[in-house]
Amino acid sequence: MEEHIPFNKVLGIKLREAKRGFARVDVPFRDELVGDPLKPALHGGVLSALADTAGGCAVFSMIEPGSTCSTIDLRIDYLRPGRLEDIHAEATILRVGARVAVASITVWQSDREAPVAVAMGVYSVKR
Amino acid sequence: MEEHIPFNKVLGIKLREAKRGFARVDVPFRDELVGDPLKPALHGGVLSALADTAGGCAVFSMIEPGSTCSTIDLRIDYLRPGRLEDIHAEATILRVGARVAVASITVWQSDREAPVAVAMGVYSVKR
Amino acid sequence: MEEHIPFNKVLGIKLREAKRGFARVDVPFRDELVGDPLKPALHGGVLSALADTAGGCAVFSMIEPGSTCSTIDLRIDYLRPGRLEDIHAEATILRVGARVAVASITVWQSDREAPVAVAMGVYSVKR
Amino acid sequence: MEEHIPFNKVLGIKLREAKRGFARVDVPFRDELVGDPLKPALHGGVLSALADTAGGCAVFSMIEPGSTCSTIDLRIDYLRPGRLEDIHAEATILRVGARVAVASITVWQSDREAPVAVAMGVYSVKR
Repeated sequence: MEEHIPFNKVLGIKLREAKRGFARVDVPFRDELVGDPLKPALHGGVLSALADTAGGCAVFSMIEPGSTCSTIDLRIDYLRPGRLEDIHAEATILRVGARVAVASITVWQSDREAPVAVAMGVYSVKR
Repeated sequence: MEEHIPFNKVLGIKLREAKRGFARVDVPFRDELVGDPLKPALHGGVLSALADTAGGCAVFSMIEPGSTCSTIDLRIDYLRPGRLEDIHAEATILRVGARVAVASITVWQSDREAPVAVAMGVYSVKR
Repeated sequence: MEEHIPFNKVLGIKLREAKRGFARVDVPFRDELVGDPLKPALHGGVLSALADTAGGCAVFSMIEPGSTCSTIDLRIDYLRPGRLEDIHAEATILRVGARVAVASITVWQSDREAPVAVAMGVYSVKR
Repeated sequence: MEEHIPFNKVLGIKLREAKRGFARVDVPFRDELVGDPLKPALHGGVLSALADTAGGCAVFSMIEPGSTCSTIDLRIDYLRPGRLEDIHAEATILRVGARVAVASITVWQSDREAPVAVAMGVYSVKR
């Protein structure tokens, strides 16, 4: 994933784990990911891209090889500013049908009990 | 904006126009922004980060200097795959109160009548 | 629509207009629709149900008779409290594919330029 | 709640439990709540109003008496058709700040492990 998707390489997204209906992806902290140098905080777009990718990986874990998956919509709620630390995202599939899958995603940093963001993604699946 | 926000520099976001309750931002196409080299299509995270930034700029256009603005939540609907072309986003403020602002954002490429994505962002404002 | 869908009858939803990719539905004000008697304001659930129905009607206007449509997700942004007045909702289809349709919906009362809510609905279509 | 909010009375919403950062509300099934008599299925607007109410009750559990709370936005994902049965919704507060609270809501019927819908609500709090 890291090598084949150019923008995931820019972000430094690493697929850490994928199993049926679940995926975890990580992004090691780098200075370029900052969105607000004064606060300071990560750019929300980094968290959102990571959430979207986690959800997509979780969907891929449930569909046949050769099937495709694209995001229909994504909603992200930012719960606290992203610190200048590594970022983790976990996605769980809530529903997968013949055509649409829904993933619930949590983004956290050092404290897993205090997520920095939660997201919900809806994906189109073509089998 | 391009120089002060590291991740906006990574994305290549340029603020094109900002006036009361409105902002337009652009991203020139670069190969690193690709999310699916086979289709091919831009990474959804690029469109989402651009939408979030456009909304934030529109909010800033309506608040006093020294006020801050952070994204509470963002929802993006991907209407068609992003082509390997420049990207534009326009945000309009639907409501701004003492504490919360709501922006409607359209992301398009060469054909403005056929947006690639629409988004709605809610921002916290501290005056 | 008013007669065949029990909950639309409870709400008093009237289909006012439907044409290719567009629908308008209305709800005459009644005391039972109030959600906050002190403010006073309409119940958000009334606006949301109306938005969902408007979006669904707009989708139906673009699919063949006998096709079905169900809501995948709906997001509503409440822009101002709903007054104790008649309510109107208009939906426009942003995209309709073989399987999924996306509608943008505006809910307003006496002043159309100052909507009480905007919503985005994603619908599954079975042709 | 049932007696003071007219539309909650129409829906038949009962507050079942509320404690710090949590609320559960129920709606007993009635024929008027049906949205699709052919499928048959509950009206999505019923689930959405219930989710919004559950989130609002959970927010109220965390704010001082006399404070007010209003919904800024709500997103609901419909995971399966609502059966002609009683409906339950549980809300958990993910974050509450001086001005904004975020609630995660699950709506289920007889099988709690298979929710009919999940929602995320953002609320404005005035203390």
